[in-house]
Amino acid sequence: MKFLVIGGDAAGMSAASRAKRNMPDLEVTVLEMTEDVSYSACGMPYNIADSKREIDDLVVRAAKVFREKQDINLLTGHRVTFINPSGKTVSGRTRQGKTFEFSYDKLLIATGGRAVVPDLPGMDHPGIHVLKSLEDGRKIKAYIREKQVKKAVIIGMGYIGLEMCEALRELSVQVDMVKPGPVFLPWMAQELSESIQAELVSHDVGMHAGHAVERIEPDGNHIRVICTGLTLDADMVLLAMGISPSSELAENAGLRTSVGNSIAVDRTLKTSDENIYAAGDCADAYHMVTGRKTWIPLALRANRAGWAVADNVCGKSTELPGIAGTAVFKVFNKEVARTGLTIKEAETFSFDPASVTISSRSRAHAHPGSTTILVHMVGDRKTGRLLGVQMVGNEGVAHRINAAAVALHNRMTVEAFSQTDLAYAPPFGPVWDPLLTAANQLLKKMEN
Amino acid sequence: MKFLVIGGDAAGMSAASRAKRNMPDLEVTVLEMTEDVSYSACGMPYNIADSKREIDDLVVRAAKVFREKQDINLLTGHRVTFINPSGKTVSGRTRQGKTFEFSYDKLLIATGGRAVVPDLPGMDHPGIHVLKSLEDGRKIKAYIREKQVKKAVIIGMGYIGLEMCEALRELSVQVDMVKPGPVFLPWMAQELSESIQAELVSHDVGMHAGHAVERIEPDGNHIRVICTGLTLDADMVLLAMGISPSSELAENAGLRTSVGNSIAVDRTLKTSDENIYAAGDCADAYHMVTGRKTWIPLALRANRAGWAVADNVCGKSTELPGIAGTAVFKVFNKEVARTGLTIKEAETFSFDPASVTISSRSRAHAHPGSTTILVHMVGDRKTGRLLGVQMVGNEGVAHRINAAAVALHNRMTVEAFSQTDLAYAPPFGPVWDPLLTAANQLLKKMEN
Repeated sequence: MKFLVIGGDAAGMSAASRAKRNMPDLEVTVLEMTEDVSYSACGMPYNIADSKREIDDLVVRAAKVFREKQDINLLTGHRVTFINPSGKTVSGRTRQGKTFEFSYDKLLIATGGRAVVPDLPGMDHPGIHVLKSLEDGRKIKAYIREKQVKKAVIIGMGYIGLEMCEALRELSVQVDMVKPGPVFLPWMAQELSESIQAELVSHDVGMHAGHAVERIEPDGNHIRVICTGLTLDADMVLLAMGISPSSELAENAGLRTSVGNSIAVDRTLKTSDENIYAAGDCADAYHMVTGRKTWIPLALRANRAGWAVADNVCGKSTELPGIAGTAVFKVFNKEVARTGLTIKEAETFSFDPASVTISSRSRAHAHPGSTTILVHMVGDRKTGRLLGVQMVGNEGVAHRINAAAVALHNRMTVEAFSQTDLAYAPPFGPVWDPLLTAANQLLKKMEN
Repeated sequence: MKFLVIGGDAAGMSAASRAKRNMPDLEVTVLEMTEDVSYSACGMPYNIADSKREIDDLVVRAAKVFREKQDINLLTGHRVTFINPSGKTVSGRTRQGKTFEFSYDKLLIATGGRAVVPDLPGMDHPGIHVLKSLEDGRKIKAYIREKQVKKAVIIGMGYIGLEMCEALRELSVQVDMVKPGPVFLPWMAQELSESIQAELVSHDVGMHAGHAVERIEPDGNHIRVICTGLTLDADMVLLAMGISPSSELAENAGLRTSVGNSIAVDRTLKTSDENIYAAGDCADAYHMVTGRKTWIPLALRANRAGWAVADNVCGKSTELPGIAGTAVFKVFNKEVARTGLTIKEAETFSFDPASVTISSRSRAHAHPGSTTILVHMVGDRKTGRLLGVQMVGNEGVAHRINAAAVALHNRMTVEAFSQTDLAYAPPFGPVWDPLLTAANQLLKKMEN
């Protein structure tokens, strides 16, 4: 049997490797358009922050290992341009311009996502960067070094923008962040969002929400970012406006698409074509809280979906229950985490939400080094269910969110969650864990 | 209505305060035998470690506040010696030798636990200490200061012993730990236990498992701890051999007792007498994994049980689901956490357990500062259920355990747990959280 994979990143390589482990006789081919496979994309901002490290440190497994140790026919520099579902073939062109065609019994589309690039005048300036592929990371590192970048503008204020902001500040680069929307982190409860904004300001980051970028102009060796009511100068511009699913191949092949134009898959990761799977940032998923389709491109679900595809291709039927929308990131000294729905999302999905924001401590009463932890929690008045949690703090946030994520997977009520036996010792939190204090407060509010 | 509480620590004061909040007209009396109420007992080792801090820093709320702000009739120095359930009275004697008697409509026994003290020759030496009450903490701090303690022996290797070991080493006191049993932490998976033992040894702690203490002898200003095959010298000895429930009052009143001689209570915290509740370290609880009675004296469940008693006394019917046996402690640079059953406990309760121990990392591939996290996970082959987790690592352990605790509350299978959407970012862990890697490995083992 021939298993063909388009895309050699998290989902694609996870699927290829596991399929080979499941069935050593399976003929597995991976077509990757770049020269890089299996690298820690999320590690790029941290690598860029350290001028002594090479970007290639992020390669988890070399292409050679997949080829020689795992007997995977891994072809880099192979861009697929067409899928023919009825003929069960894919075709495309190599970097060197040669055409190719491969047939398959089972196909996995793991084409990932691509950075959103706005259609504005001046976008062809060589100082304008995105950060999605390892090649992007290479270019940014080289550009910072060669141009001795001292000043950067980041357009967008999402995870990548914030992580890159910290990375650039580590390199003593002056940073301005700009976005068209008026609210810094619109998905986040106000008090939490303000504490992160304060953290950025205290690290001398210029924060400019509410300014649409109109055009970008060269200015000698510099770049001028012209926004409504604001002009920013920089040596380098990073576009961090989010990503969109690379679903064109699938769409052109007639496959069904879904939320945000991602490829629609069922719980077995199968698309609308019997023999084609999709996984990773290009595909949708079920949300554990709403039970509905969602599109949240994150690394764990890409790896997990790759494994599930491999199992299904090899005849070991596997269904993925779905994702809770759990995410964590670091901005300077703040850990920021979320899982489940925001109150607005809860309203959209016809819940009757109530929410609280509480302030707790990262260590016990009178324990030295204690800092504030803010918790925002959302529950449903109708069913009593826990719907979502957001947290910000200097410590004890990143892993704490997982307790709430597991609660969401189990459709726990806020009351049941408030009764869970969470760990306590003075260096790690108050007797009543911040999550429990939030649940206790939310419960009171939901009862009234 | 008269609500009478015996014991003014975590469970007792939580109950008294909440009862007053629930029903401001309720007549609430608390009889506490010491002079201290509402302090962070678990914080004592950390306070002792810092000679600049006073032990009274650990007082969370002063007796005065309970009396004046909350209108609780709080009587310290009142030792109850007798409960008369048929007459609904309790009687006793004050520190000053005066007898007293109080009547009640509802009674809460929150007498806590007491440190186990072995019956050995020489136990009356003034250099021999236990650490249970704030008064014990005061004595230890004073003794270390006055006697300029340079060398200590800790008998017992439980949480308190380990935390006090770290505290004494912080004060540059040389420490030997000794226990009769041959295994350092018998409840812990061997590889994890060994990593903690190595941590202690690397901090120059003498570890002597397998030596029963036979007697203690004075030796000038020193103390000799005579064990089988070993004699240890010290300026001070700490008995850290665990605690036992203070259930004599209840037993003498004819109330039913349970595991480890704790007071038997139902899910509403009611004892075998209609009008008497028990909560905190003196009472038993239901275990979420086994569904059976257990006795695990920890702070959160004491506070929570106090609240539940207050609600039940005030007519707001509340049942506690039970505890998962979640605990965390710190030993030098190691965080140690557990929840649920050990493999031996699982066998005792007629599960068909399988277990794995895996080694993972605290940060992502190629992220600087990453250290080892060891995870031991137990599942049931018959039902597929997750039964227990233990973890050791330098970071990322204390709060990570809570995800597993919540899973136990929901009787999740290892497979369902392996599919949970846990947080990922490079500074905080690998893409596959150590808990997920353990679940994936355990699942494979359970399938074979």
